[in-house]
Amino acid sequence: MSVAEAGPKADVLVEAIPYIRRFSGKTVVVKYGGNAMGDDLSTFAEDIVLLHSVGMRVVVVHGGGPQIGDLLSRLGKETRFVDGLRVTDAETLDIARMVLVGKVNREIVSTINVHGPLAVGVSGEDCGFLHASARSPELGFVGDIDLVDRRFLDQLLESGFIPVVATIAMDAAGQAYNVNADTAAGAIASAMEAEKLVYLTDIEGVRKDAADPASLLSTVSADELDGMIRDGSVTAGMIPKVASCTGAVRAGVRHAHVLDGRIPHVLLLEFFTDAGIGTMVTP
Amino acid sequence: MSVAEAGPKADVLVEAIPYIRRFSGKTVVVKYGGNAMGDDLSTFAEDIVLLHSVGMRVVVVHGGGPQIGDLLSRLGKETRFVDGLRVTDAETLDIARMVLVGKVNREIVSTINVHGPLAVGVSGEDCGFLHASARSPELGFVGDIDLVDRRFLDQLLESGFIPVVATIAMDAAGQAYNVNADTAAGAIASAMEAEKLVYLTDIEGVRKDAADPASLLSTVSADELDGMIRDGSVTAGMIPKVASCTGAVRAGVRHAHVLDGRIPHVLLLEFFTDAGIGTMVTP
Amino acid sequence: MSVAEAGPKADVLVEAIPYIRRFSGKTVVVKYGGNAMGDDLSTFAEDIVLLHSVGMRVVVVHGGGPQIGDLLSRLGKETRFVDGLRVTDAETLDIARMVLVGKVNREIVSTINVHGPLAVGVSGEDCGFLHASARSPELGFVGDIDLVDRRFLDQLLESGFIPVVATIAMDAAGQAYNVNADTAAGAIASAMEAEKLVYLTDIEGVRKDAADPASLLSTVSADELDGMIRDGSVTAGMIPKVASCTGAVRAGVRHAHVLDGRIPHVLLLEFFTDAGIGTMVTP
Amino acid sequence: MSVAEAGPKADVLVEAIPYIRRFSGKTVVVKYGGNAMGDDLSTFAEDIVLLHSVGMRVVVVHGGGPQIGDLLSRLGKETRFVDGLRVTDAETLDIARMVLVGKVNREIVSTINVHGPLAVGVSGEDCGFLHASARSPELGFVGDIDLVDRRFLDQLLESGFIPVVATIAMDAAGQAYNVNADTAAGAIASAMEAEKLVYLTDIEGVRKDAADPASLLSTVSADELDGMIRDGSVTAGMIPKVASCTGAVRAGVRHAHVLDGRIPHVLLLEFFTDAGIGTMVTP
Amino acid sequence: MSVAEAGPKADVLVEAIPYIRRFSGKTVVVKYGGNAMGDDLSTFAEDIVLLHSVGMRVVVVHGGGPQIGDLLSRLGKETRFVDGLRVTDAETLDIARMVLVGKVNREIVSTINVHGPLAVGVSGEDCGFLHASARSPELGFVGDIDLVDRRFLDQLLESGFIPVVATIAMDAAGQAYNVNADTAAGAIASAMEAEKLVYLTDIEGVRKDAADPASLLSTVSADELDGMIRDGSVTAGMIPKVASCTGAVRAGVRHAHVLDGRIPHVLLLEFFTDAGIGTMVTP
Amino acid sequence: MSVAEAGPKADVLVEAIPYIRRFSGKTVVVKYGGNAMGDDLSTFAEDIVLLHSVGMRVVVVHGGGPQIGDLLSRLGKETRFVDGLRVTDAETLDIARMVLVGKVNREIVSTINVHGPLAVGVSGEDCGFLHASARSPELGFVGDIDLVDRRFLDQLLESGFIPVVATIAMDAAGQAYNVNADTAAGAIASAMEAEKLVYLTDIEGVRKDAADPASLLSTVSADELDGMIRDGSVTAGMIPKVASCTGAVRAGVRHAHVLDGRIPHVLLLEFFTDAGIGTMVTP
Repeated sequence: MSVAEAGPKADVLVEAIPYIRRFSGKTVVVKYGGNAMGDDLSTFAEDIVLLHSVGMRVVVVHGGGPQIGDLLSRLGKETRFVDGLRVTDAETLDIARMVLVGKVNREIVSTINVHGPLAVGVSGEDCGFLHASARSPELGFVGDIDLVDRRFLDQLLESGFIPVVATIAMDAAGQAYNVNADTAAGAIASAMEAEKLVYLTDIEGVRKDAADPASLLSTVSADELDGMIRDGSVTAGMIPKVASCTGAVRAGVRHAHVLDGRIPHVLLLEFFTDAGIGTMVTP
Repeated sequence: MSVAEAGPKADVLVEAIPYIRRFSGKTVVVKYGGNAMGDDLSTFAEDIVLLHSVGMRVVVVHGGGPQIGDLLSRLGKETRFVDGLRVTDAETLDIARMVLVGKVNREIVSTINVHGPLAVGVSGEDCGFLHASARSPELGFVGDIDLVDRRFLDQLLESGFIPVVATIAMDAAGQAYNVNADTAAGAIASAMEAEKLVYLTDIEGVRKDAADPASLLSTVSADELDGMIRDGSVTAGMIPKVASCTGAVRAGVRHAHVLDGRIPHVLLLEFFTDAGIGTMVTP
Repeated sequence: MSVAEAGPKADVLVEAIPYIRRFSGKTVVVKYGGNAMGDDLSTFAEDIVLLHSVGMRVVVVHGGGPQIGDLLSRLGKETRFVDGLRVTDAETLDIARMVLVGKVNREIVSTINVHGPLAVGVSGEDCGFLHASARSPELGFVGDIDLVDRRFLDQLLESGFIPVVATIAMDAAGQAYNVNADTAAGAIASAMEAEKLVYLTDIEGVRKDAADPASLLSTVSADELDGMIRDGSVTAGMIPKVASCTGAVRAGVRHAHVLDGRIPHVLLLEFFTDAGIGTMVTP
Repeated sequence: MSVAEAGPKADVLVEAIPYIRRFSGKTVVVKYGGNAMGDDLSTFAEDIVLLHSVGMRVVVVHGGGPQIGDLLSRLGKETRFVDGLRVTDAETLDIARMVLVGKVNREIVSTINVHGPLAVGVSGEDCGFLHASARSPELGFVGDIDLVDRRFLDQLLESGFIPVVATIAMDAAGQAYNVNADTAAGAIASAMEAEKLVYLTDIEGVRKDAADPASLLSTVSADELDGMIRDGSVTAGMIPKVASCTGAVRAGVRHAHVLDGRIPHVLLLEFFTDAGIGTMVTP
Repeated sequence: MSVAEAGPKADVLVEAIPYIRRFSGKTVVVKYGGNAMGDDLSTFAEDIVLLHSVGMRVVVVHGGGPQIGDLLSRLGKETRFVDGLRVTDAETLDIARMVLVGKVNREIVSTINVHGPLAVGVSGEDCGFLHASARSPELGFVGDIDLVDRRFLDQLLESGFIPVVATIAMDAAGQAYNVNADTAAGAIASAMEAEKLVYLTDIEGVRKDAADPASLLSTVSADELDGMIRDGSVTAGMIPKVASCTGAVRAGVRHAHVLDGRIPHVLLLEFFTDAGIGTMVTP
Repeated sequence: MSVAEAGPKADVLVEAIPYIRRFSGKTVVVKYGGNAMGDDLSTFAEDIVLLHSVGMRVVVVHGGGPQIGDLLSRLGKETRFVDGLRVTDAETLDIARMVLVGKVNREIVSTINVHGPLAVGVSGEDCGFLHASARSPELGFVGDIDLVDRRFLDQLLESGFIPVVATIAMDAAGQAYNVNADTAAGAIASAMEAEKLVYLTDIEGVRKDAADPASLLSTVSADELDGMIRDGSVTAGMIPKVASCTGAVRAGVRHAHVLDGRIPHVLLLEFFTDAGIGTMVTP
């Protein structure tokens, strides 16, 4: 290369290597969003394998609401709502589980495995590692996580695997529940005492004023976010993410991030540069 | 207990313990059949956990043809046949994968985990451990296994887990294939250098004369079975099982068994008694 | 086997395996009695090897009073008694040690080793692991155990051996003492924090009324046994066994047992069935 | 100390330390003779513990002919001879075993254990580690060693113990045999691939002319000894020792030694000085 | 950062990470030249610590001819020459050793240790790891390396240190020799089976025509370099470097490099970019 | 050897072996004095290798005042004094470092390595393991040790090396300091929690009356030494040694010794005899 090219490249490397070293052996939980899927999946998979290759312990968590809706409608299954929340009867749960574990999870796993045969798809039923109970009798099999048994994920990570988690949980009797993926990612990050919890979304980060792109916050504390939830600055769809971020950093996760999954290699840019990108939540 | 009861109990224990010791640390691959499912699942799950508890490395393999057929028909998906074999187009594969990985596999995993949180559901896409290629362009995504990468299963077994395998495989480009579960069980047993390969079915074993229950064979060699396949004594549905048995014992599996899954605790009876039960295939 | 045979056998196995698993790695101290010797030795040896084969850490303790008496009388050695207790002078001790270590111990060791080359005969002089002091000057070299140094037995057990203990002890100056084998077995079980302490005798267990076979107790607490010793229900010969049982369960041994050594495989029946056999002493 | 004392002491230390280092971790088999017993036992025991303390793996082997004779005569047991060799019937064997295992072995073990609780008395019946068969039907239970299973001694040595071996062996059926202790010591040294095999006797070493103390050989080769046996220079009582020495050095033992057990600390003087003492046999 | 900045940074990271992973655990020997010293030392030290931080095993080798000359002249020590080569008498060797080990080596070690306390200065006398013999009696204590005992460097590297080597060697009698640092670096790289051998110089690399900067070779084979040495294209000062490069790649070093030490972070640019920089020598 | 020789030799061995065992694995710091150098270096080196060979962890510390003075005068470098203490400017430091690290250290290292390739020469700059700060601005680069980072020496010792320490220290900015070798030896022994700290000098030990050789103290407590420093019984040159001895035994070093380095093998005589030699300081 020319000397002119050399300088900027050297700067990036000198900046990145200390982060690469610092995060080696550290755990990161990445929530890969339904909205961020599609074209970006291959680039996302490449980043996940690169993070793994420099020694990070990466756990991917995903949802799949739109895909569940598709199959429900193809099967002509009607959904009841109680207070605006979808009721999950046994058949709906069965369909949701098939879609999450048997379809969305498989697509992420097989895309990662083209870059390196490392991904293992799991759900909370495997070794019963996500324990849940019913949120409300009226909602059926919608669950809230009671406990994350981190030993299962630890053993997969120590074996060098990348766990990809579909957020079906179970209770002691073997009954399955569907749980919110954003909330599950936060609970897993807390249980793993993760270095980072990352939400990949389709916006650039958290805005002080939801309507104003210029009000993007590059750093925000958990307390400030609490205030923003109270005063309505955080919009509905962001609440589970934002609330999980504040919960996680208070439970020992060092940093939580809301990043724009549409930016190629956004994970590398956030992790390995001084400036970072998107919004970082601090305790 | 009374002395009268004591004698027969003592006899069973004296007979069983040397087998329990001998099989500790040994690998067994159990193909759990679609037909044997239903009421017997809980008893089967108990046996699997008991075998695991005395130190055996247990791998469960399952199919799910009838359940795939159910969802295909609910979705109104028509199936074409070529030379009597079902053509698996992309949509059929997607549905088969959802059913096998997201439904049948989940039921076995969660039933085992009620007896002990040990089962981990996997498919051949996880770590890409089952490599396959298309059997024939006309059949679409029906695959034949080219390679079993046993390291993935070894790591799960060394972590103390019970892998439950849905027989979806993948090629280097990440394309999934549906593979025959009986054949996959044989390939896995061979790759694992298993002590035993067991097919749980709804008949008592292999008969010399398919129509005559009294002709049940308690032991049969691979060569004898080859002859029976050639002269038509083995009926169509049994051929993948029987051929996998002969292939596996020739590839180093010590014994293969065809057992009647309807007999409660048939696995314990076969493994831990002198007389055994069902049909045992020797090299 | 026939289906009719299969059911009862399966029941025994399903019942036994959880015990086999639970006791794996646990320590059991078995006092093999002089009276129970003879024809039953080979069956006893087989049981000991079977228990060892499923991972139990087995320590055998034995006495040999009758055999000592035989040699004393052959040598024309007269024995003095003080308050009904035999005085052990230097020559008597020498003879007792020869018989216990060089004859009775050897017979048990070599019989076990026909079933599996695992038994190592030891006495408390080896590594000085049983420390004793004189009970009374008048009784000569009759000792009471002051200390069991469990590290020696632990190392033998960790090497996979079955220690067979002749109950000669020593003091710091190297002087040997003869100690009561029943009492020694209790002290060893306490020091080893054993799961079980077992006395094999020639009666079915402890009776509420010594004269009434129908009053056999299948479970009894240490407190109840204390009462029975005080009110004379426990006869003289049983007192060291019964008192050692109560002492051991109070010192942390989980269960103590008095079993009928004449019942073949009585150890397997007690350990691996729900009902058990003989008398179990609880804390 | 004074400078005058310092020089000679320093010379001994500078000479000894390289040997102490060289022999650390090496195995030595010491045959402790019946004739050398008595007053010297305590000094011998001290040496054994010192050798152990600098990392040597020490195995002591002993006989006990005179003591066996004593008990036989006390019991009025007559001995038959065939071609000058004592016939060992079942009763004689029983008595020999009692004396060797239960008396002579115990005295050595307990004397060593006063210096350090390290000695474990064993016979070839323990773990069946000395396999023998009958030398001749006419001689009864006089055995020749067929095989030494060194794993048992290796495990004791790795646990840090000092095995003290009484030379009773057994066959596969559990039958015991009395074997010559000199020969057994050689067989054990060969099986252990010992650095040294040492016979402690009551003469200064091997003489070129048995009648001439001045003809003591300080070094002699196996071939020279063969010649001396052939030409009668080696007297009857020394033959098993001398023949075992030549056999052992040819089987891989580096050096064999015949030392005078009456010289205090003769083992230290031989092992840790340049000049050595007694007779050293080289391959 | 802005999205405009993000793209180029992401490109550098995606390119670099696979190299970072590939070289983790690999050994690299870097010859740091006397000419390249001075202002660049701190940047060089930073690069060495960064390479170490991502898991590379880094060995630094240095010379110090100019600094030796300085002290010789300050001390008024005259140097004789034989055939154009400096004669190293005992006093010259003493001075050279003081300068290399006590001055140049110290400066490199202490500069690295400001970035991370990892550097350990050594010479070939430490553990006698560089064995040499005299090149010619007339030249005095100028040595050629006979043997590199890599265990010493391996132990330092396994302890996580960065060895900094002053190229004084020794013979079996303890005599020191001064050896050429370029040649020593090649010998060390070969002995370590290094992934890379790097010469940092004050030119951009190897030129096809020494006088023409535009003829810089970015890749060249060992055979081509042999030809260039023969036909005089390689100038005198470069010959030890170039000859060591060809020797090393033929001895198993994967790649040798001649780089311009004046370019900041030239090591990172060479190791972690696709294009590389300077000249790479291939087998 | 003759029996007359045997007795005294055996006595030395019986006395020495328990010490050899006791000190195995223990750490000893030996300050090798400038005055004791010269002819005795080879004998000293032999002792160091012998101590290492019986498992001791040996650290050698040395000074080199006279040799520094030689080079300063050869270079015509004048030294200023402040209050009787030499001022160390940058050039003086540079020269001191060259002499200590590049000359004196090298001579000790290469002499030891003729006896066994074990010695590694280090200074406090290596891994920055000796941290110092300036004693006083007027004295320039004369330092006092603030901290000994024992991990570096521990890793060298665990790798089986013998560290030979030149007492140059550094501060966080990489600035070097010359520190008193006697004091440094004491600080290192304290940090290592050494069993022994030894000063080799050219007198027989500490005298109660400095002028009276007959007043040599064979044992003295730290408190007594404090008194002797206060009342002037300890002369100037001995104060750093004596004060370091008292400091070390109070910081956990078990014993400190002042020995006469002119007595051959004085280290062996002190360590491995009951009587010892020289002066031993107790807490």
